Amino acid sequence: MLRNEKLVFALPKGRILKEVMPLVRHAGIEPEPAFDDESARQLRFTTNFPELDIIRVRAFDVATFVAFGAAHMGVAGNDVLLEFDYSEIYSPLDLGVASCRLSVAEPADLRDEDDPSTWSSVRVATKYPNLASKHFAARGVQAECIKLNGAMELATQLGLSRRIVDLISSGDTLRANGLVEVERICDITSRLCINRAAWKTRPEEVGGWINKFGEAVDAFAA
Amino acid sequence: MLRNEKLVFALPKGRILKEVMPLVRHAGIEPEPAFDDESARQLRFTTNFPELDIIRVRAFDVATFVAFGAAHMGVAGNDVLLEFDYSEIYSPLDLGVASCRLSVAEPADLRDEDDPSTWSSVRVATKYPNLASKHFAARGVQAECIKLNGAMELATQLGLSRRIVDLISSGDTLRANGLVEVERICDITSRLCINRAAWKTRPEEVGGWINKFGEAVDAFAA
Repeated sequence: MLRNEKLVFALPKGRILKEVMPLVRHAGIEPEPAFDDESARQLRFTTNFPELDIIRVRAFDVATFVAFGAAHMGVAGNDVLLEFDYSEIYSPLDLGVASCRLSVAEPADLRDEDDPSTWSSVRVATKYPNLASKHFAARGVQAECIKLNGAMELATQLGLSRRIVDLISSGDTLRANGLVEVERICDITSRLCINRAAWKTRPEEVGGWINKFGEAVDAFAA
Repeated sequence: MLRNEKLVFALPKGRILKEVMPLVRHAGIEPEPAFDDESARQLRFTTNFPELDIIRVRAFDVATFVAFGAAHMGVAGNDVLLEFDYSEIYSPLDLGVASCRLSVAEPADLRDEDDPSTWSSVRVATKYPNLASKHFAARGVQAECIKLNGAMELATQLGLSRRIVDLISSGDTLRANGLVEVERICDITSRLCINRAAWKTRPEEVGGWINKFGEAVDAFAA
């Protein structure tokens, strides 16, 4: 990483972006107009700060870009951060947005006769096989975690697994698919995350942004 | 798997679906009207065959559903099949659609001084870390493969890696990003894939569909 290169800030596409942008703007960052067209193919954007660019990538890829120093800072949910568990990422600030939880869910009719505390082994479908494996291992439950990128609700319907580990926000999707939450693994919010080497080599710039985001969080919490 | 349950046919969302549907329809399968609304949340669809349902999931998940027998048949590119290399999937029929290739690409200015035959180690960003690792291992090249789900063109721009391993179709995306293809790993087309256990337990049904798809391929090739 060269000291004179632009600072690159990675933001996640989709649902989380809408909740994060008010904080980004409160921190004083205004991306070029093309940024607001989410359907466009452009991935990198200038901002009102000549030394700061934004990239817009998938939530899982935010963590990878930041971990390898290809982006200096980013926003990622702790679901993504815990799934990868990259030692090169430091996440000093909870942004308090995009709240949800990661939970185990199963069909309502299975629930009636099921007590999670008695499980000795489970098979789950999930976007988070590492996180789910660690959770079950810590509980002494042997787990087979099948990675799916989407369509979790089909997993139980078609017998891929009796249970899923997935993000739950309102719970509407679960209910619509006849599933109920049976065990909460962790609460999720979006965090400001920083590449450790970038923070070491550019402490004033990076520290300045952490402070500005901290002020934005405080302002919205007030 | 119960013998009396419906046969489940997994199709991939997006670009490939458009190329595959003429074959599906030529094989006599007509999904319920809701299927044509690709933006809808519905994932499972009935067809004109009471004993056959279609699910529409991500290309990578097609392979997982078929491998675990949650879908009995599916359509997947050999990029996906090679990446997972599931022993439970048999792919007896090349559908000859969605042709592209998996290749190594790098910035044009790097290309001028680079000869792939001299590589002893590479770092690549790719959606296909297993496939890329195997390719380089077979060539005796030590490879660090960083998994990205998208935004490959940012990987080289931001220094995540000097090279990428990605699907190339027309080559327009590569050129637009100043990249050139330097090594072809394999040619890709979509294949009909079958869960091995399903074929054993329901040979007439599954075999019948393989024949119908074979006729469809022949008809379009003629």
